[in-house]
Amino acid sequence: MTTSPGPPAPKAGKDTVRRHNLSLVLRTVLDEGETTRAAVAARVGLTRAAVSSLVEQLLAGGFLTERGKTFSGQAGRPGTALRAAATGPAGLGVEINVDYVSVCVVDLAGADRVRLTEHLDNRNVPPGEVLERAARIAARTLTSAAGQELDAVGVRLALPGLVSGGTVRQAPNLGWNRVAAEDLFGRALAALRPERPALPVGSDNEANAAAVAELWFGAGAQREPVRGFLYLSGEIGVGGAIVVDGELLRGAHGFAGEIGHVVVDPQGPVCRCGSRGCLEQYAGQAALLRGAGLDEAAGVPGVTELERRALDGDGRTVAALESAGRMLGLVVSGAVNLLDPEAVVLGGIYRPLMPWLGPAVNRELSGRVVSGLWPRGGTRLRASSPSGDAARGAAALVVRDVVADPARYAGR
Amino acid sequence: MTTSPGPPAPKAGKDTVRRHNLSLVLRTVLDEGETTRAAVAARVGLTRAAVSSLVEQLLAGGFLTERGKTFSGQAGRPGTALRAAATGPAGLGVEINVDYVSVCVVDLAGADRVRLTEHLDNRNVPPGEVLERAARIAARTLTSAAGQELDAVGVRLALPGLVSGGTVRQAPNLGWNRVAAEDLFGRALAALRPERPALPVGSDNEANAAAVAELWFGAGAQREPVRGFLYLSGEIGVGGAIVVDGELLRGAHGFAGEIGHVVVDPQGPVCRCGSRGCLEQYAGQAALLRGAGLDEAAGVPGVTELERRALDGDGRTVAALESAGRMLGLVVSGAVNLLDPEAVVLGGIYRPLMPWLGPAVNRELSGRVVSGLWPRGGTRLRASSPSGDAARGAAALVVRDVVADPARYAGR
Repeated sequence: MTTSPGPPAPKAGKDTVRRHNLSLVLRTVLDEGETTRAAVAARVGLTRAAVSSLVEQLLAGGFLTERGKTFSGQAGRPGTALRAAATGPAGLGVEINVDYVSVCVVDLAGADRVRLTEHLDNRNVPPGEVLERAARIAARTLTSAAGQELDAVGVRLALPGLVSGGTVRQAPNLGWNRVAAEDLFGRALAALRPERPALPVGSDNEANAAAVAELWFGAGAQREPVRGFLYLSGEIGVGGAIVVDGELLRGAHGFAGEIGHVVVDPQGPVCRCGSRGCLEQYAGQAALLRGAGLDEAAGVPGVTELERRALDGDGRTVAALESAGRMLGLVVSGAVNLLDPEAVVLGGIYRPLMPWLGPAVNRELSGRVVSGLWPRGGTRLRASSPSGDAARGAAALVVRDVVADPARYAGR
Repeated sequence: MTTSPGPPAPKAGKDTVRRHNLSLVLRTVLDEGETTRAAVAARVGLTRAAVSSLVEQLLAGGFLTERGKTFSGQAGRPGTALRAAATGPAGLGVEINVDYVSVCVVDLAGADRVRLTEHLDNRNVPPGEVLERAARIAARTLTSAAGQELDAVGVRLALPGLVSGGTVRQAPNLGWNRVAAEDLFGRALAALRPERPALPVGSDNEANAAAVAELWFGAGAQREPVRGFLYLSGEIGVGGAIVVDGELLRGAHGFAGEIGHVVVDPQGPVCRCGSRGCLEQYAGQAALLRGAGLDEAAGVPGVTELERRALDGDGRTVAALESAGRMLGLVVSGAVNLLDPEAVVLGGIYRPLMPWLGPAVNRELSGRVVSGLWPRGGTRLRASSPSGDAARGAAALVVRDVVADPARYAGR
């Protein structure tokens, strides 16, 4: 993830504590869903007067709304119910993948409010053109969001490749090498909205963004949250992300998680990454479609057809999925031996295919994970949550920046 | 790692800050090697009077010594030179491996002061007996240490298996399953030293302990420290550990790092862990010896002979090492794609064999790590430091606990 350039930060100094407390109060309201000034004061350990002053600033900045009167649940006079604003500051997430672009706007509470997805082939198209397409889709999404009075304060791109310092170092399945994605997208979007100030643009790997969504809106947001997991994103490529103690493990260059390029067979087919026999060659979308006798370039309709055939019990399809599941299980067992995660989450196209992939993956895991740690029939392997995907995760990363320092975004 | 039971902690409360500051001052002196009260005060931001009082307590507790007069390098009167005591509180590390036991005592500065290693075969010996052997070796080491006025305040075991909650869940190459190692060792050691209070015993995986030693005394202690690396420990088994931002990545159950059981060939030979074709079967000590035509049970003399033959340019030996290096490289490339570490460190028997293993490992890495991240001839692959091993790492973990809260250990 790159640091979002964002609006210039106010000078540090005497207002640092107040800015910190603004964030603390906003986070507390977001955590509670709906609460009162008194309850916030009790929880964060500030005086009621201090909290009231901070709440006024958050109301004025459009971060909070209040409505009606509610009883605090304790003795005393009723308080006003505070909650995160459903309008105002929002995050824009833009997933650019090989055969689709998906854009979403999330509000301060993380809810997915506007979504626009277009299926199109981004292969063999110059990167600048793909980013212009994505900017057009983003601009239309922002127009819809404005209709709901949501005002995006930043953009995060989610891209299927090695992303660092605003640049895609390599995205083999898109055929990108050293593409200044943030800059190109930002300029294209600004050109489409000349009347608006340019939005700061950040970028991240798509599997990282999807794993963040799983952490905040899926497995990590359950009653018994999963705070450490290995995430696999099945697409044209096979992306991956590692979450440890509620944080992404990014690695020395920001490139951790590339499980799609772990080798299954050193003599296997050449991969777009330059190596041979990578997992992607056995368990990527093209391999699944090809194995089932479908056109490997059939895209989303192909995956839908694959699922339909599997549901029909088509032998070749089921066998192809089982074979891919074995390969996934082989590589995932190694990753589990290395990382000892609480859970393994399969997302992207793997989610609907779990009924057929899952048993084969679990079989390999229970046979290969060091002793007794992967009991058969356990629940450590799971499909990704339907409420989390890379675009929402990317948008939520923008919102996280807002919540971490609301003062920086007030009065935009 | 288990939490060391240790002496009972003093009640928290008004002395918490003082205890924290005691640790801070001790750590500062350790970091500097030799310093003055004035320099400590300047560095930690406490008053000279407060630091003097804390230093008196650390001198009385035997944690620090002072000698002569030194000039502080600044204007003013000379200060007394403070340094860590070379006698007094110390840590005991006990590595129990398949064909040796190595015990060491380190002082507060982390120096390896007494070392006793015995080569013996721990296979097919009941675990209790192995732990009694180790306790006898430890008792002799403690006697030597006492002759140097070093007084171990705790023990940490380093074991080649899955270690959690004081128990070895599984150590395939020792043939151990659910062995209460801490308890058995502690009782055996106490029985050998009935006149002394029992030492608290902790335990850890041997590769984790070796990685800690590499972090504190090897790659992590250089002028440009490596704070994140993948560590491989070549022994009878192949152990592994992952260091991220200067901390061990332990995983959900404490079992992360098991790279020896990452699969090279799903149809390969059965491994002691129950899986097939694990890295250990291709790059463990037995495989190296067998590949070179030596007796696979030849132990340390066998490895010495292997190195001698490789130095002589013996074709079969060089080919066996190159083949093992390819397998290592294959698995390590997957781990690097997953983790994106700054460096990969090869320790244990791999260290002396690096001239022959290294090129093959690097070749696989440069061909298989995602684009351009593993340039040929780079320095990201390195042999472990000769000054770091599992016994020293384990002993240093005891010392770390002491330095973190010296008050808890004072007056023992």
